[in-house]
Amino acid sequence: MLNAVDKVLLKAVADLQDLPTGAFNIRKNGAGVERKTTPNINILTKTDKPGIDIIVKPFTKGESVHIPVILSESGLNDVVYNTFDIGEGSDVVIVAGCGIHNEGHERAQHDGIHDFIVRKGARMKYVEKHYGEGEGTGKKILNPKTIIEVEEGGVAELEMVQIKGVDTTKRDTEVVLHKNARLIVVERLLTNEDQVAESIINVDLQGEDSTAQIVSRSVAQNTSKQVFHLNMRGRNQCRGHIQCDSIIMHQAHVSSIPEITAFHSDAQLIHEAAIGKINSEQLTKLMSMGLTETEAEEKILQGFLK
Amino acid sequence: MLNAVDKVLLKAVADLQDLPTGAFNIRKNGAGVERKTTPNINILTKTDKPGIDIIVKPFTKGESVHIPVILSESGLNDVVYNTFDIGEGSDVVIVAGCGIHNEGHERAQHDGIHDFIVRKGARMKYVEKHYGEGEGTGKKILNPKTIIEVEEGGVAELEMVQIKGVDTTKRDTEVVLHKNARLIVVERLLTNEDQVAESIINVDLQGEDSTAQIVSRSVAQNTSKQVFHLNMRGRNQCRGHIQCDSIIMHQAHVSSIPEITAFHSDAQLIHEAAIGKINSEQLTKLMSMGLTETEAEEKILQGFLK
Repeated sequence: MLNAVDKVLLKAVADLQDLPTGAFNIRKNGAGVERKTTPNINILTKTDKPGIDIIVKPFTKGESVHIPVILSESGLNDVVYNTFDIGEGSDVVIVAGCGIHNEGHERAQHDGIHDFIVRKGARMKYVEKHYGEGEGTGKKILNPKTIIEVEEGGVAELEMVQIKGVDTTKRDTEVVLHKNARLIVVERLLTNEDQVAESIINVDLQGEDSTAQIVSRSVAQNTSKQVFHLNMRGRNQCRGHIQCDSIIMHQAHVSSIPEITAFHSDAQLIHEAAIGKINSEQLTKLMSMGLTETEAEEKILQGFLK
Repeated sequence: MLNAVDKVLLKAVADLQDLPTGAFNIRKNGAGVERKTTPNINILTKTDKPGIDIIVKPFTKGESVHIPVILSESGLNDVVYNTFDIGEGSDVVIVAGCGIHNEGHERAQHDGIHDFIVRKGARMKYVEKHYGEGEGTGKKILNPKTIIEVEEGGVAELEMVQIKGVDTTKRDTEVVLHKNARLIVVERLLTNEDQVAESIINVDLQGEDSTAQIVSRSVAQNTSKQVFHLNMRGRNQCRGHIQCDSIIMHQAHVSSIPEITAFHSDAQLIHEAAIGKINSEQLTKLMSMGLTETEAEEKILQGFLK
């Protein structure tokens, strides 16, 4: 059921040449097309709304779940609700992501609402890549909503990447951290042409000794627009750090509107944001080594978003 | 007309033991009580609303204007509109500030709306200190609004301090910078008991090669609350830097919600914010030198707000 275009999309969003090893569920144009479970990871179709339940048994270690979504039909608005139960003491990798190939003139949209519970002492790495392509005039729209609760001693590590070709995105991420829980977020975003991207991350440091680190790196080209709302609320003895770096080019606009709030005198919160153009010294150096300006720029941007 | 209480207030807000040298205008309980002008600095009473016009002649150098306001009547809401015309190429110091002594149970409030034009190549240092005292239950409220336009090559340096005893404050500062104009803001704020402070600073970097630097330092004690909105918008080749450090103690809340937006690819904007408790190593060191914990804390806070 997967054709050549599908395979290009799967490669882009989930780094898959073929069907993945371990558990997986591939969704195409609003319907599941292939699924595999393992003795430790079950995947069930929701009965009340579109989406799946992914249940990881306690103490499952070293396993992965791939749940890529591909859209190749213009005019489709695919809304999906996925629920993840990451069992106590487990250690798993979840690779989500959505690729859109839109050759038509109607919009193609995917809204993935992902709800996670990372149970006591569990460790979850969640990778989400977004990618759009296709010569049509139809917009490619991706609005992910990610809600995560991390129980005592749990770790959630998020890698959220928008590679290219997404016309409009509104990314909404909400995380609650309990005692000793830890959050690491790496966000990488590139917009060009007249694309618009908005990223909202709310982290609630509720538990004692919870920690959160957000690193957001973005490049805004042409007339694209980016807005970042990265917020941390410290309600206990806790530590939080937000770092937000953007490279602005051409006629792009970038806005960084973070918020750190301490509701507790042992909350330690730091925010750093910088918006600026490409490093001109690096550019000169690379060009003196024989690269054209465009090649040098490309190399610097690649390094920055790595 | 100035009694002993007035003199305490004047000392606190304008560092005055006696009448100042240079131009001045002293306002007490909603009316002007004493004024002096100089050949270069004129002060005129507004005819359409309460307040004064302060006019500094072009190329006036090394002169100062003191315009302190004191309130010692409970139940008074003193609103005043002051307009400053800082002539081309001049270099002056303006010392404003408001002291409230409230022995009553009604609120005493001063809203100073200050409107500045800093003309071509002029340099203005503006010092504003706010202070409250008095054993009454009536609230002491200070809501300054400061609007500044800095013309080509001009410099505005603001030192804005809330010393103590102000129950509620909403500080609203708006600055527009033209070509090569420069802004330096140092804000220092201490709240204790159940005081509430909100500071909003909006800087619009409109002109080519304009620069802005904001340093905000605050201490929040007891159940007091502080909110900072420090915003910079870069609309040209420009540089802006915001640094916001808060020490949080007891059951206080501190919220830092800055915003940096680049509308131009040659805008370089940086924001740094940190909220945390008092440095425990410094505390231990000072206590090992014989200070009590309270004395050591006091010393660190004094240094931090200096």
